[in-house]
Amino acid sequence: MKMLIKNVTAVLPDGSTPVTNIMIDKNKIAGIGEVPEDFRPAKVIDGTNHLAIPGFVNAHTHASMTLLRSYADDMALMDWLNKEIWPAEAKMNDEDIYWGAMLAMLEMVRTGTTTYADMYGPWMERVAEATIDAGLRGVLSRGIIGVAPDGEQKIQENADLFRQFNGAADGRLKVMFGPHAPYTCPPKFLEKVAAAAQDLGAEIHIHMHETMDEINGSLKEYGERPFTWVEKTGLFDGKGTLAAHCVHLDDSDFAILKKHNIRVAHNPGSNMKLASGVAPVPRLLQEGIVTALGTDGTSSNNNLDMLEEVNLAAMLHKVNEADPLAVPAFTALQMGTEFGGKAVGIEDIGRLEKGYKADITLLNMQGPAWCPRNNPVSLLVYSANASSVDTVIVDGNVLMEKNELKTLDEERILFEAQRCADRITK
Amino acid sequence: MKMLIKNVTAVLPDGSTPVTNIMIDKNKIAGIGEVPEDFRPAKVIDGTNHLAIPGFVNAHTHASMTLLRSYADDMALMDWLNKEIWPAEAKMNDEDIYWGAMLAMLEMVRTGTTTYADMYGPWMERVAEATIDAGLRGVLSRGIIGVAPDGEQKIQENADLFRQFNGAADGRLKVMFGPHAPYTCPPKFLEKVAAAAQDLGAEIHIHMHETMDEINGSLKEYGERPFTWVEKTGLFDGKGTLAAHCVHLDDSDFAILKKHNIRVAHNPGSNMKLASGVAPVPRLLQEGIVTALGTDGTSSNNNLDMLEEVNLAAMLHKVNEADPLAVPAFTALQMGTEFGGKAVGIEDIGRLEKGYKADITLLNMQGPAWCPRNNPVSLLVYSANASSVDTVIVDGNVLMEKNELKTLDEERILFEAQRCADRITK
Ligand SMILES: [Zn+2]
Ligand SMILES: [Zn+2]
Repeated sequence: MKMLIKNVTAVLPDGSTPVTNIMIDKNKIAGIGEVPEDFRPAKVIDGTNHLAIPGFVNAHTHASMTLLRSYADDMALMDWLNKEIWPAEAKMNDEDIYWGAMLAMLEMVRTGTTTYADMYGPWMERVAEATIDAGLRGVLSRGIIGVAPDGEQKIQENADLFRQFNGAADGRLKVMFGPHAPYTCPPKFLEKVAAAAQDLGAEIHIHMHETMDEINGSLKEYGERPFTWVEKTGLFDGKGTLAAHCVHLDDSDFAILKKHNIRVAHNPGSNMKLASGVAPVPRLLQEGIVTALGTDGTSSNNNLDMLEEVNLAAMLHKVNEADPLAVPAFTALQMGTEFGGKAVGIEDIGRLEKGYKADITLLNMQGPAWCPRNNPVSLLVYSANASSVDTVIVDGNVLMEKNELKTLDEERILFEAQRCADRITK
Repeated sequence: MKMLIKNVTAVLPDGSTPVTNIMIDKNKIAGIGEVPEDFRPAKVIDGTNHLAIPGFVNAHTHASMTLLRSYADDMALMDWLNKEIWPAEAKMNDEDIYWGAMLAMLEMVRTGTTTYADMYGPWMERVAEATIDAGLRGVLSRGIIGVAPDGEQKIQENADLFRQFNGAADGRLKVMFGPHAPYTCPPKFLEKVAAAAQDLGAEIHIHMHETMDEINGSLKEYGERPFTWVEKTGLFDGKGTLAAHCVHLDDSDFAILKKHNIRVAHNPGSNMKLASGVAPVPRLLQEGIVTALGTDGTSSNNNLDMLEEVNLAAMLHKVNEADPLAVPAFTALQMGTEFGGKAVGIEDIGRLEKGYKADITLLNMQGPAWCPRNNPVSLLVYSANASSVDTVIVDGNVLMEKNELKTLDEERILFEAQRCADRITK
């Protein structure tokens, strides 16, 4: 189907924001600019007074954890995990995984995210199902904890997930392997994960260097930093690696990141709320390491709002580096879009450009936060919030138009999610 | 007039969130709880599925600067001021001041702020007019720069503003004196400001210790930190002082803050964006110093959204202190409400409690960010955004009900603000 977004203020890959037209043909952007006479769209969306951006890419989250949103906050990390999060997670069944994921789908569509990278489980097939039902683009991985007795089985589940869903839904689904973290996966176990992933040609999604405790624990147990010994397991030798957090990095870690073209998912909201530390984002960007943004799970954020992460990325590093020029607004937006595409290993998303996937978010620039209209990118990043998102297109399909959801039943999702949450938390 | 907010989830001063009823009589909260049989409200607002909080108090801003929102961002501070902000401000006339302030009123009502403390000028009488027209509660001060040739005149203007507007609009307006900052007001000049303010029984609103440059400049020029020599001018000896920023504080500064009961307006968004530093908020709170929140002007934020400041206050200090328990959600909310009332010297605002002013904000808890409903305060501070605000009451008057503005013409304000902004920035 051909579709036209007419008269829209588009944020182009160079940061310019002309009022223009976006032509869509099937699942791709067919052109941006003057509409050729022979382009006959079956559907026209009026983009007047709207800002078009590439849909946000949430490069690291745990979708089904939305059921635990606001369940336990302002606690010390290990108390929080041991007394609240893990016991609640242990009660989750496959229906909870589905409705938690559907709540996440709803929130992502409402806030303009078109692609997300997930790590969770069991029952990741239900997350795949939710992603297919919602129409989003999902990069799924089964969270694999090697210290548990069923570690091997989880590797199998991840392999099954890959075989069943990698490339599914017109290519909207992609599957990675999800070894949880170096502190939950010993070296021998990571070797097995690496072998299984490489057998299938799958990429890796892993938490790395989130806290100083993790680094110190590794130094104590292995005499080496996690990046150093994980590299030796061969985990980084496969098709590609997406490393969430990377808060604490020294020169040796940077060398490994660069050597293996590891892509980083920076999670400023989660890192702030859990007091994990501030990732060296300006240096990561400067050294040419792909640095995207993620929300992490909603128990540590507490939402899936990528525009907030874009804003935090622009704000946090300025004060942290005492440099008002650190991470300018457009760079932060790129981290949440184009760099997100690269981070999750999908090269043709994240830019409003001919040939790229038609994954597009429109924001209504009505209201005081968008006035005066001096600089649309600055207004987006520093002033507006995600409630301006009113239209979301993924793979050429309209998932929301002028705030009306096309694939999701909001009332039912909120009802079922609350019902599931009540059971696991009460 | 008697008014009833029925069946609302109310955030009470102790942090509890019962579903209850709020009774309003004239401009005050007449009671919270069971509705007595003889309470006959002329108006009933259905609070079902809504969260009631005390209206936000923005303890430090420059309302008319909204005209410069997104005009110049991501620049070094002195470049930004010299090349962009000051030249644009020099072109402002009294109409710009009015429409800039009206844009601010619109944004504050839409985002649930009921009281704000302003420092700007000239033509602060137009800001007073906008505040009266909008129905907000305003604590106004004329920004006084002593190094300019018309410094004395500005003191006079502030005194005139006090005589004309302090206590006006049924007590909704209050006037303070607004010496801009130690680096723009030499000691002899601050003595004059102190005398003029104390003559009238007026409080002081001043920027203090915003940047390390300010401290270092003072050490070089006076051999002392600003707080040390400003104290000697007698500026802190009057009725009360509201000090914005207080980012860089040592023990001697803390002693002065405590000795004079100086109230602090912390501006996390502005401090992050301008890379000013991180204020020692946990220590301020611990030492019992009144610490409120402000947005600062929209050129350095870039909005007047107090819920964002509440969120940042809860997030920034956790990561800065490496303590996930630093500034819990409810404390951050108190900073944006109750402590704001104390900071601007209005003791009977900022709490949902009998006898307090009927300054109330209702948020619609519909949508994914509010689901599941585990903890309303946590959902408010960490998950929701200000687009949930749908009803705002100030001094017993409804300024917005279910998103419908009662005192402001949004279309006209956006039009006039854009027109004014175009003239001064192009
Ligand atoms: Zn995570
Ligand atoms: Zn200020």
